[in-house]
Amino acid sequence: MSAAPLTVALLGGGTVGAQVARLLLEQSADLEARVGAPLQLVGVAVRDTAKPREGIPSDLITDDAAELISRGSDIVVEVMGGIEPARSLILQAMAAGSSVITANKALLAADGATLYQAAEESGVDLYFEASVAGAIPLLRPLRESLAGDRVMKVLGIVNGTTNFILSKMDEEGADYADVLAQAQELGYAEADPTADVGGLDAAAKAAILAELAFHTRVTFDDVSCEGITDVTSADVEAARAMGFVIKLLAVAERTPDGSGVIVRVHPAMVPRDHPLASVRDAFNAVFVEAEAAGEMMFYGRGAGGAPTASAVLGDVVAAARNRVSGGRGPGESTYADLPVRPISEALTRYYVNLDVADRPGVLAAIANAFAANGVSIQVVRQDGHGDDAGLVVRTHLASDGALSRTVDELRSLDAVKEVLGVMRVEGEAGA
Amino acid sequence: MSAAPLTVALLGGGTVGAQVARLLLEQSADLEARVGAPLQLVGVAVRDTAKPREGIPSDLITDDAAELISRGSDIVVEVMGGIEPARSLILQAMAAGSSVITANKALLAADGATLYQAAEESGVDLYFEASVAGAIPLLRPLRESLAGDRVMKVLGIVNGTTNFILSKMDEEGADYADVLAQAQELGYAEADPTADVGGLDAAAKAAILAELAFHTRVTFDDVSCEGITDVTSADVEAARAMGFVIKLLAVAERTPDGSGVIVRVHPAMVPRDHPLASVRDAFNAVFVEAEAAGEMMFYGRGAGGAPTASAVLGDVVAAARNRVSGGRGPGESTYADLPVRPISEALTRYYVNLDVADRPGVLAAIANAFAANGVSIQVVRQDGHGDDAGLVVRTHLASDGALSRTVDELRSLDAVKEVLGVMRVEGEAGA
Repeated sequence: MSAAPLTVALLGGGTVGAQVARLLLEQSADLEARVGAPLQLVGVAVRDTAKPREGIPSDLITDDAAELISRGSDIVVEVMGGIEPARSLILQAMAAGSSVITANKALLAADGATLYQAAEESGVDLYFEASVAGAIPLLRPLRESLAGDRVMKVLGIVNGTTNFILSKMDEEGADYADVLAQAQELGYAEADPTADVGGLDAAAKAAILAELAFHTRVTFDDVSCEGITDVTSADVEAARAMGFVIKLLAVAERTPDGSGVIVRVHPAMVPRDHPLASVRDAFNAVFVEAEAAGEMMFYGRGAGGAPTASAVLGDVVAAARNRVSGGRGPGESTYADLPVRPISEALTRYYVNLDVADRPGVLAAIANAFAANGVSIQVVRQDGHGDDAGLVVRTHLASDGALSRTVDELRSLDAVKEVLGVMRVEGEAGA
Repeated sequence: MSAAPLTVALLGGGTVGAQVARLLLEQSADLEARVGAPLQLVGVAVRDTAKPREGIPSDLITDDAAELISRGSDIVVEVMGGIEPARSLILQAMAAGSSVITANKALLAADGATLYQAAEESGVDLYFEASVAGAIPLLRPLRESLAGDRVMKVLGIVNGTTNFILSKMDEEGADYADVLAQAQELGYAEADPTADVGGLDAAAKAAILAELAFHTRVTFDDVSCEGITDVTSADVEAARAMGFVIKLLAVAERTPDGSGVIVRVHPAMVPRDHPLASVRDAFNAVFVEAEAAGEMMFYGRGAGGAPTASAVLGDVVAAARNRVSGGRGPGESTYADLPVRPISEALTRYYVNLDVADRPGVLAAIANAFAANGVSIQVVRQDGHGDDAGLVVRTHLASDGALSRTVDELRSLDAVKEVLGVMRVEGEAGA
């Protein structure tokens, strides 16, 4: 019943590459049944051919990626990472007529639109499910299942390291620095954790999600980005007291009038009964609001060799099926071409925690600062007296710019001794 | 840039049909950009042409479905429901070369494999995302994203009515009958709620999920099915006391040795920290365990005209893109052809609540009944004394048959005055 074998070339023999090779070889009978043709792994390009690679037959190993690509395999899988030489190799593969599967979030966030266009011009498939939220089938639903709907907002927990740290801070009341050290010991955080805790990894994924959700060119540089390094155990405790939990969110949304998109990464307080609140430890989840479909969430493991390899293999099967049927899958375009607007135009809510003087008129002065900037207050809670007097304010929706100006004005008030914490609030009903 | 228009015929003009027609007409520009060709609605077949249909131009209305199909549209959308005439019309449409989109869970659960095969033979697409869990993109990820992985188990909350009832019982401590009446008033439950509360609706969806997950023919009749009508507020309270919540689950899994599949629908206790536990009210969610990808969950609205229409439109766009590119999407087959095994072979855990005599030796007699059937006890909790003496037992994993025999034996013991409650436990770590 099966057609001639389809050839697969693999670029990269690291953790993910080894798992992809293993699954291709171990599950060959199942894969053949699902594709309608056998899949044949023809080569694995690596940097260091001397290094032992468990699960990869040594005669398939090569250090000449360009030569491997020039053989014109049906499918080229790129799991080497980094912008170059990955981009050149992918473009070379598509020009040679190969469909391309990549897990390369840095490259897609830097220059996804160029890859989309090259795939269109060569009439090949370009799939990249593994680039965001690892094993969670997310990009295919966004590209295909919601293709008849209008996505309004995407809210994602897309970085496992920061979610692990914030979960521990919430569960154990621990300090950021202590939990980071623990995460590094457990291997959940790198020795240099900047890309994770600074929000840069999440920002790259936010760009990819925004590009697909809104059919608009969005790159890493378009994403407003703030990490979790300034989140204190006091913030976590204040969130808990209000029935919230702090998460690092990647947010991609239409502007209030629908004419543009805003993409941002920052810590945010999320109500404890929101589906994202129960996403703990190193799990990922992406919450999507669409016009007709309403709210939905995709949850699962965001990283790890085997989960990422599962996502890559799903894409390989899809591209292979298209080869067998003689067609190609849906391409991606940035036809909507909406402008990317700054975070100051986003409608958000703020939580503000103030250390205030304990004297009459303080609340009035503070309320005036909010009102003067057109921000309306949802809840005020006053804690303590005398030197310990504290005031916690949660606002209604207002432009992020107006909220940011309000906080500046609060800092300048005599009545305010210190602004202890400021954080955006997401996921409240009616938000 | 666009190709010639693609024609779409719609069978059914009810709640979902009207929303599909509205979205096709309202979003035509966006849909054209995503498909690469305009979509043209050529007719809507309804039973009663005299009934006013908001959003559907009256010149498109017809009561001759067979004639509409005979025009050979590119895509036929079936949202009329029921087994016949839906099956005959779908087969007629595929024979005429039309790709078919259907939301018909009853038909797919009765005879999905026949439809798959007809689609293969005619070389057309058959998509049915809306048939399970409405707006949640679930079947496409199962069919495509996980095509390179091995699904081990699917656990779903796929019926909104029963989830609404069980959520209310949990939150308010209310009785089943009271909450059912409330659900009927709110329109969440039908006047005759049998299909929902008896688990039949969930069983149809379980069959569809199992067929896709395991590439094996599974029909409604293969599903072991138990509804929620016997769930008492005492069960709900006992679950709460142990840190569990009761959900009606659709479970599809491989047998312990992997050689067959078991598909079952029944109420089950789920730990409160399991992602399924926080799925409240009329929401749906499906939890999937795959070998490489690990655990993942899909969450969203399972019903309603607009959400269902969003799922249908996503399928329409997919089928239309395939027409434009000259290929077809992945077909579905039941190649794995695993035998469907009875629930007695499933490995499960039980919760058993007993009213017992308060005298020495009772616990020993009960423990013996478990041991005699090869079932090991995980937790025993003894409540009260004298006439109120109660015993709650939770077991380790054992075959459902052995557990069921144990309960029969408990009923026959002098020491046991009454078996107050028996329920399966799912989703525990290590389960």
